[in-house]
Amino acid sequence: MISRVLSAELAEHAGQRVTIAGWVHRRRRLKSVSFLVVRDRSGLAQVVAPGAVPGEETVVQVTGVATANPQAPGGVELTEPEIEVLAEPTEAPPFDLYRPVVPAALPTILDHAPVALRHPRLRAPLEISAASVAGFRRALDRLGFTEIHTPKIVASATESGANVFGIDYFGRPAYLAQSPQFYKQAMVGVFERVYEVGPVFRAEPHDTVRHLAQYTSLDAELGFVRDHRDVMAVLREAVAGMLEVVRGQPAIDLLGVALPEVPAEIPAIHFTQAQRLTGEFEPDLSPEQERWLSEWAVREHGSEFLFVTGYPMAKRPFYTHPDPLRPGYSNGFDLLFRGLELVTGGQRLHRHQDYLDALAARGEDAGPYEGYLRAFAHGMPPHGGFALGLERWTARLVGAANIRQATLFPRDLHRLSP
Amino acid sequence: MISRVLSAELAEHAGQRVTIAGWVHRRRRLKSVSFLVVRDRSGLAQVVAPGAVPGEETVVQVTGVATANPQAPGGVELTEPEIEVLAEPTEAPPFDLYRPVVPAALPTILDHAPVALRHPRLRAPLEISAASVAGFRRALDRLGFTEIHTPKIVASATESGANVFGIDYFGRPAYLAQSPQFYKQAMVGVFERVYEVGPVFRAEPHDTVRHLAQYTSLDAELGFVRDHRDVMAVLREAVAGMLEVVRGQPAIDLLGVALPEVPAEIPAIHFTQAQRLTGEFEPDLSPEQERWLSEWAVREHGSEFLFVTGYPMAKRPFYTHPDPLRPGYSNGFDLLFRGLELVTGGQRLHRHQDYLDALAARGEDAGPYEGYLRAFAHGMPPHGGFALGLERWTARLVGAANIRQATLFPRDLHRLSP
Repeated sequence: MISRVLSAELAEHAGQRVTIAGWVHRRRRLKSVSFLVVRDRSGLAQVVAPGAVPGEETVVQVTGVATANPQAPGGVELTEPEIEVLAEPTEAPPFDLYRPVVPAALPTILDHAPVALRHPRLRAPLEISAASVAGFRRALDRLGFTEIHTPKIVASATESGANVFGIDYFGRPAYLAQSPQFYKQAMVGVFERVYEVGPVFRAEPHDTVRHLAQYTSLDAELGFVRDHRDVMAVLREAVAGMLEVVRGQPAIDLLGVALPEVPAEIPAIHFTQAQRLTGEFEPDLSPEQERWLSEWAVREHGSEFLFVTGYPMAKRPFYTHPDPLRPGYSNGFDLLFRGLELVTGGQRLHRHQDYLDALAARGEDAGPYEGYLRAFAHGMPPHGGFALGLERWTARLVGAANIRQATLFPRDLHRLSP
Repeated sequence: MISRVLSAELAEHAGQRVTIAGWVHRRRRLKSVSFLVVRDRSGLAQVVAPGAVPGEETVVQVTGVATANPQAPGGVELTEPEIEVLAEPTEAPPFDLYRPVVPAALPTILDHAPVALRHPRLRAPLEISAASVAGFRRALDRLGFTEIHTPKIVASATESGANVFGIDYFGRPAYLAQSPQFYKQAMVGVFERVYEVGPVFRAEPHDTVRHLAQYTSLDAELGFVRDHRDVMAVLREAVAGMLEVVRGQPAIDLLGVALPEVPAEIPAIHFTQAQRLTGEFEPDLSPEQERWLSEWAVREHGSEFLFVTGYPMAKRPFYTHPDPLRPGYSNGFDLLFRGLELVTGGQRLHRHQDYLDALAARGEDAGPYEGYLRAFAHGMPPHGGFALGLERWTARLVGAANIRQATLFPRDLHRLSP
């Protein structure tokens, strides 16, 4: 490995001759001296050079003396440098990567993602995304969950019917999985508690700031619950775990993000209470209602998170467990965060006959679900789970207006590259 | 949550009245007493009941007194039980799940995966798989890597041309990604060190014990390397990290797996030396040569791992970096483990012009690679990486004859469900 110190570690080496490596982030030439700012994965380092220096985005290795200078980033700069060029760019970036504010519109950024994401502010959401996933896994690992990897190619488009991508599977029709729902439920019978972090695919013909054709779903499912409240308690731990790891990230300071606190118990209100509070009585909550409820939760409970429970059965998938005391309402929930639905979850049916009855009540044929239903014929405990969209979470957390700002290489109605 | 102790924790509660929950693994009725073995995610617990008890695979919750009995699993059994049935099976499993050896052939197991995988011996490889991934991430997290999630739907089938699944992407042709190769390389320019754990798709029309149409690829890529040896050093850490977490798994004892030691430096031989040793001089190593070399490494170096470096350029992808001293040979490597190629990796080209030259030398048009090559036009450090197939690793580690035994729901030429 090139023996180097990271720019963030430079202060620890004051007075020593060390090597750094990275990209020329910016150069400035004064009359008798040049300043070179080198960018590496940890941040920026300043180099003071007597003569000419390489241009922006040149890959360099610089050996010099780490010298205290209160005006340099980190309080230290490299002097008496030897600069070695490792690779030269052959093309200028689509915009200046060194400007503090990104001087480009989203389509330009997305078209040039491999170079645009080098901008520290554009890279930051993706660092927060990675930290979030690490926290999610850590929280669930502690709770005895097992990670699984389920098929992304499936034989039928049963879960929602519409909005699936068709694929040619060795000459047979197949589909890209919209979620690991059925597989994670079946695996409760094997591991009791499972999670999956993986891509899901939605052929939704919407061109909006919050739809992607591929996104990363954080899915969890657990058995031996009393009801949906046990699932909500695990989700609370998962979200707290995500924020625990996110909190230590330099990207949070860079973006000036105010992180939410997760209450020991996230406040919850029933769907019917949400209707009464907002004075609207449609069978689902509108975006306006969700925003109003989020503000209400901040006001009444000091919480940026709010559970809404008991959504009407008619608005939830057939595998949703009804509320035993109010059968028209479900043991399903949403988690609202800063005005937006972030997570959907709930208790599921667990008895084979209940599935057959639920499908019959909806006038659906059980045939296409046979493989799915088989797991329930062999004894399944009361269980439930949830799914959280990683990009939506990250965008909401950093205050990005468009979900694509929290996605490495987004796929949507129009975009299939890079 | 149902307040319960896991079967593995029962001994800590000797003398107390506690609740366990799980599936009836086995029941045996003697004249005046029944023995019930309850299976949960941690293992088995024995219950002694005076009367009739529920049948196999019934989901139960049992409250009783944890009573020392040296003959019970874990040295403790539950006496004076109250048994509550949480759910009853409506169908018998395809084979007896309680038999120590699995009394079924692989197709039966795969057809009935949701219930078959409840058998502790069939579940065990998947627990080892999950532990392996956790270890992989932990090792790379420690080394400053960032986790990424790349598109699985891509615009062109450029990487290998053949063996891709076509998809209908909003009326346009698209393909399932065969690897995150191009994306992870581009992200070296952003994060320096990246990894991805995700599905890759190969439309290989082979029906063998080691091919899958979807598998989980553990991919890593890192910049600022001197050459491929720095990549090999990181791979060594990743494999050691995987085994570190695997070592603590009960599944290892259950399967009686002998885990390999990872030498501080894994022995490496050059391709030409491998040819001389085996006396075969084909442009690639045959399976027989790989087996022979693995045995040789055990004999000569006491290592079950062996790096073979310097594969001929003609046998490696166009993005492979040549050996500067012997240009017909590459800075690419394979890692052999117990007679089989487990990992492929190497140093990649990093200069834009080198890519154009490499494609021209192979008579390939650079046009389809334009998006990929663009990253290199903006200054990329010397870098390299590797890819490890999770299912292949797990199968090899547990000594499974068929890769499908290490896959939750395999997809192959014939199998698209469950």
